[in-house]
Amino acid sequence: MPKKSAASRLRLRVLLTPDIALGPGKAELLERVQDTGSISAAGRQMGMSYKRAWDLVDAMNRVFDEPVVLASKGGSGGGGAVLTPFGTRVLARYRRIEQTCAEAAAADLRWLSAHCASP
Amino acid sequence: MPKKSAASRLRLRVLLTPDIALGPGKAELLERVQDTGSISAAGRQMGMSYKRAWDLVDAMNRVFDEPVVLASKGGSGGGGAVLTPFGTRVLARYRRIEQTCAEAAAADLRWLSAHCASP
Repeated sequence: MPKKSAASRLRLRVLLTPDIALGPGKAELLERVQDTGSISAAGRQMGMSYKRAWDLVDAMNRVFDEPVVLASKGGSGGGGAVLTPFGTRVLARYRRIEQTCAEAAAADLRWLSAHCASP
Repeated sequence: MPKKSAASRLRLRVLLTPDIALGPGKAELLERVQDTGSISAAGRQMGMSYKRAWDLVDAMNRVFDEPVVLASKGGSGGGGAVLTPFGTRVLARYRRIEQTCAEAAAADLRWLSAHCASP
């Protein structure tokens, strides 16, 4: 049976409500806010507008019972932003879900990869 | 802490290649082909055009080393289609991945749900 070199991977999102999901994009945005201390810089690194990045952060702040990011409206620099301790825990839970699911699904993912046609 | 009645749920897709994923939509389409014996009827039940449904089936038939659906070009009725035994196995693997991931992530999903704001 022909084998594909690339393995099948999971991509998952958590539907927190029917309308609001936490997925790879929002998780990456939180990490980049943590790294850069700025919503605009985090969004820029991901090729999104400040408004888009801010809307995603705002959606997360509203869906949870504590804020995940605290932002200060600033001047020309756009102000600073920090991932809260709660935001750090949310992010860690999401990354752990990704990890545990990848492990739980490993055998089935291998089976699917083994049955993919050669490139 | 306020609890939300709705539990957080996982939505996952398997990236078979960087471009082709098997997710909830394709899985449902395969099930509906199995139930209806028709790609057009399956697509219609999901509100998609025959072309869209056929393109999705075609993508799956190409990405795997065996077809998941066999279709006969028909007349006015659009021909019939069957899920192959291989397609049945692919579908079962996907559903099992969903199930095992939901179980593996249950504690983290409960934590996230418990920290969602009241509606």
